[in-house]
Amino acid sequence: MKGQFLQHINQYISLDKNDFLEVLSYFDVLDLPKKTLILEEGQVCRFNYFVLKGCLNMYFTDEKGSKRTVQFALENWWITDYLAFQNKAVTDFSIQTIEDCQILAITQENQNSVLSQFPQLEKYFRAVYQTAYGASLKRMKFLYDFSKEEMYFHFITEFPAFAQRIPQYLIASFLGLTPEYVSEIRKKKRS
Amino acid sequence: MKGQFLQHINQYISLDKNDFLEVLSYFDVLDLPKKTLILEEGQVCRFNYFVLKGCLNMYFTDEKGSKRTVQFALENWWITDYLAFQNKAVTDFSIQTIEDCQILAITQENQNSVLSQFPQLEKYFRAVYQTAYGASLKRMKFLYDFSKEEMYFHFITEFPAFAQRIPQYLIASFLGLTPEYVSEIRKKKRS
Repeated sequence: MKGQFLQHINQYISLDKNDFLEVLSYFDVLDLPKKTLILEEGQVCRFNYFVLKGCLNMYFTDEKGSKRTVQFALENWWITDYLAFQNKAVTDFSIQTIEDCQILAITQENQNSVLSQFPQLEKYFRAVYQTAYGASLKRMKFLYDFSKEEMYFHFITEFPAFAQRIPQYLIASFLGLTPEYVSEIRKKKRS
Repeated sequence: MKGQFLQHINQYISLDKNDFLEVLSYFDVLDLPKKTLILEEGQVCRFNYFVLKGCLNMYFTDEKGSKRTVQFALENWWITDYLAFQNKAVTDFSIQTIEDCQILAITQENQNSVLSQFPQLEKYFRAVYQTAYGASLKRMKFLYDFSKEEMYFHFITEFPAFAQRIPQYLIASFLGLTPEYVSEIRKKKRS
């Protein structure tokens, strides 16, 4: 399964198998059951995560105690609170597994070390972050531009892999909707 | 003024002056009056921009014809529609100068070339995008978590440089508020 991390890296750069094994030694491999918290609001954010298998969400708890998802991650996605990670600061976010997961975890120190040893990885991370940042600007547009109903149907049409695997109430939380509202518009669509 | 770009780069890496002049040769230097459109909705997004002086906003036009700002950029910020830029695709966004500006513009081909010639710049861009992406996740939290009034006062407290330079109606557009609403909460605060 770790080979898929090498494949992902090699979409952007050219890393051979021996170097990859060296790169991999900077990471912890975590096998985690569904609903495991790997980062918790109020903790220092120490790790950046790459998803080998499974699905996670990053959320915060609002004043009413509701969990509001700001990001999902499926296979081949990176996820963490990057501002807290790079500043070794306390995070406002939690990250939890939605399914049984296998993930790679790397500390900031190890990320810096692996990037020093294999500077060609800078290009890989640059490309990953450039895309992630670009997608977040696009998402800002959807948040501002779409009605709640449009946002829901856009999401399940554009991201069918998410829609099939992620429980309805988490998709609602990601889109800033209530689960009741989502049930309602789904019913309306069917009728 | 271009020296400030070198200073910004050297916050992350170590580039000497001769190499910097070489790097700079990949960019166009643009002196632009206030209210110049440098990217327009429906065009192919060909450039990535670095701000030497001045201030810009990136926006889209919603169904009612209102311009909705998704991003500002001041000195030392990069701005473009990254998804469209990297795919040489048509953009949904426009970018306009808010003040008289001096900016650096680079095409995707030139960005790839300068990164091939000076691979140490990958680290610089990786760091810039990592921070930008991290900030966008944080912003998602504010959008979900704060009341409109909290969002406004958080923005002007956290980003005083923006609040002083950017017209009220653009700050309102960035926060998803009407200019009338902003006037109202400012009045309320003063009274």
